[in-house]
Amino acid sequence: MKRPLITLTTDFGLRDPYVAEMKAIILSISPEALIVDISHEIEKFNIRMGAYVLASAAPCFPKGAIHVAVVDPQVGTARQAIIICTNAALLIGPDNGVLVLAAKKLGGIKYAYKIANSALTRPSISSTFHGRDIFAPAAAHLANQTPLAKFGSKIRGITMPEFSKVTKRKDMLVGEVLHIDSFGNIITNFVQSNFAGMSAEASVEIELNRIKRKLKLCRAYAEVKPQEPLAIIGSHGFLELAVNQGNAAELFGVKAGDQVILKLEKHS
Amino acid sequence: MKRPLITLTTDFGLRDPYVAEMKAIILSISPEALIVDISHEIEKFNIRMGAYVLASAAPCFPKGAIHVAVVDPQVGTARQAIIICTNAALLIGPDNGVLVLAAKKLGGIKYAYKIANSALTRPSISSTFHGRDIFAPAAAHLANQTPLAKFGSKIRGITMPEFSKVTKRKDMLVGEVLHIDSFGNIITNFVQSNFAGMSAEASVEIELNRIKRKLKLCRAYAEVKPQEPLAIIGSHGFLELAVNQGNAAELFGVKAGDQVILKLEKHS
Amino acid sequence: MKRPLITLTTDFGLRDPYVAEMKAIILSISPEALIVDISHEIEKFNIRMGAYVLASAAPCFPKGAIHVAVVDPQVGTARQAIIICTNAALLIGPDNGVLVLAAKKLGGIKYAYKIANSALTRPSISSTFHGRDIFAPAAAHLANQTPLAKFGSKIRGITMPEFSKVTKRKDMLVGEVLHIDSFGNIITNFVQSNFAGMSAEASVEIELNRIKRKLKLCRAYAEVKPQEPLAIIGSHGFLELAVNQGNAAELFGVKAGDQVILKLEKHS
Repeated sequence: MKRPLITLTTDFGLRDPYVAEMKAIILSISPEALIVDISHEIEKFNIRMGAYVLASAAPCFPKGAIHVAVVDPQVGTARQAIIICTNAALLIGPDNGVLVLAAKKLGGIKYAYKIANSALTRPSISSTFHGRDIFAPAAAHLANQTPLAKFGSKIRGITMPEFSKVTKRKDMLVGEVLHIDSFGNIITNFVQSNFAGMSAEASVEIELNRIKRKLKLCRAYAEVKPQEPLAIIGSHGFLELAVNQGNAAELFGVKAGDQVILKLEKHS
Repeated sequence: MKRPLITLTTDFGLRDPYVAEMKAIILSISPEALIVDISHEIEKFNIRMGAYVLASAAPCFPKGAIHVAVVDPQVGTARQAIIICTNAALLIGPDNGVLVLAAKKLGGIKYAYKIANSALTRPSISSTFHGRDIFAPAAAHLANQTPLAKFGSKIRGITMPEFSKVTKRKDMLVGEVLHIDSFGNIITNFVQSNFAGMSAEASVEIELNRIKRKLKLCRAYAEVKPQEPLAIIGSHGFLELAVNQGNAAELFGVKAGDQVILKLEKHS
Repeated sequence: MKRPLITLTTDFGLRDPYVAEMKAIILSISPEALIVDISHEIEKFNIRMGAYVLASAAPCFPKGAIHVAVVDPQVGTARQAIIICTNAALLIGPDNGVLVLAAKKLGGIKYAYKIANSALTRPSISSTFHGRDIFAPAAAHLANQTPLAKFGSKIRGITMPEFSKVTKRKDMLVGEVLHIDSFGNIITNFVQSNFAGMSAEASVEIELNRIKRKLKLCRAYAEVKPQEPLAIIGSHGFLELAVNQGNAAELFGVKAGDQVILKLEKHS
């Protein structure tokens, strides 16, 4: 049998024992599981960032991976613990939207189950750490091939995250900042197809935090001089605003969620 | 044979090559070992925090785990390198108290050995990096089933960490801040049994850094409004002072080691 | 067959999905590979720091390890992707010098190959994330024993990093700060042999950022009082300037690359 693969995405940070406790519980139940960290540096309580980071990484993993995401400000309340099944993977976490973007990228939600069977969680469940007490054991039992139907009943009406979409206004596209990465790259929700028909030589005019700039649409960061801003289609297919060897988020003074306006200037 | 499991807890951080060097040495000696990081973000030289974090995580690991902890301001001096044996696990580190809290949680110290056999360390031992040169190879040799008696002689008189205990004063309990986690949760040394007989509905009156507050004793962080403080029994059984989706340590201006006074207000 | 071992050294940080994407690609191609992180906290674009950290850790790994290093400000430009072969290990990364220090420590460059065969990279290569699209798959294919010659042609004229050497000037040695570690230890490029013939009791006179100090040459940090500066031969054989339980880089106000002057005062 192939070694099961479990990934972890949390806002727990790496200072505290929390991530190790999740791994310890997984390995107690499924000793052969291979655990891969996606990120534990999701901004505290930022479901949207957790959803984005998980959705970026999950499609790269082999088929059958089990993805656990815990960004869970409502831990201990009535919000449910769920397993989402897609064609490519299983996703485990709180029903607050953190799993849904990844589920879409992994082929869409086939069905979802509640985690309600206390034989498949830790015997005593704290009200503050479901990552250790519910999600980690559920992942390990899935790794051990426990059938989904054993965890609880099927559910409908999963919580959907609210991510804004790109809208068109005259010759402008209005989008937003999806994520600022640790390089300071500003990852927007504009995708390759928003640029269809444009020449690869084109530049883009953007407005961001009241700053208007015309930026070269590059294929490599180093196509402009160090410390100069540029636009680029990033490695996940989104338009990024970047600074060669510098920090675009600092230059423009923006954060995730901010509006970005894009005026396409066609190559004449 | 089951794959041996070695955990690492250090104050080395993740920027430098030090943690990888420990892993490299372990894998050179015990190629099948599974290495799990507990934390490498222990505050530099903070033995007490290392002891707390290790003691929190260690009990979750499967029986037989080998826990290495290196928070070692006296590295290269006469302080000894030791292995502590409990019923549940083996613990390796400097004899400065960093292992002792975890040993207690793992069933208590059965016996302890010096690491004094240079055939079981690196051939050349630096005076500044015993994590790589002594503790990592010792862990790997234990993983390979090397008998404890081969490492050195049995020792008594292990260094005990000085952690204060909860004391009673009239209708008050005087305790302290054990740990501030990365959420800013203030983890105190008050435990569930200090609350025995109290109604689950009770609130607690605390005094902390000269601030007196009456806090709802909640079962979930989200029982109060965002940014409001609360009290809760955390996932390790200690009383936590928290702020829903906020940072309690910042609100109260406290740090690990600070005194906490707790006035129990019984449900009338 | 022995489990292949792949290490990763990058400036990607741990917040973003990037490191997990590299691991996912590796595991998709070489499911049995053991992946060990060296560091993902290399300062952004700091090739020199990446080279130093990799060169420090790599020699500890078992023979046959595959080391991937991605500090790559020129990603997407004409700079080449290369594999360096030494007697002890394989090194993969951009041809910008990041691999060369480690190659020297691992026995020297035997030969090097371009990565130019698109059957051994991801089918679609982004211009911004060769860590995921070129270097990770190359490492995984090497782990699967793909012959080096399949990747591309042999190359000569690898880019050499510019690290300054220790120079002698009268009774002084002029060197530089190689690295500041997370403890604030100042790691210089002076090595043990620069001290040949000196008594172990000697002190050193250093000049650093216009500050002249005579420092005891210790064997353990704790040989001086807490918060006092000292000199010590560190665990990689370089002269370190440190502060017992404190931060030498803050005390002296220096950073990597700064000049250090050392006046040896022989024991009379």
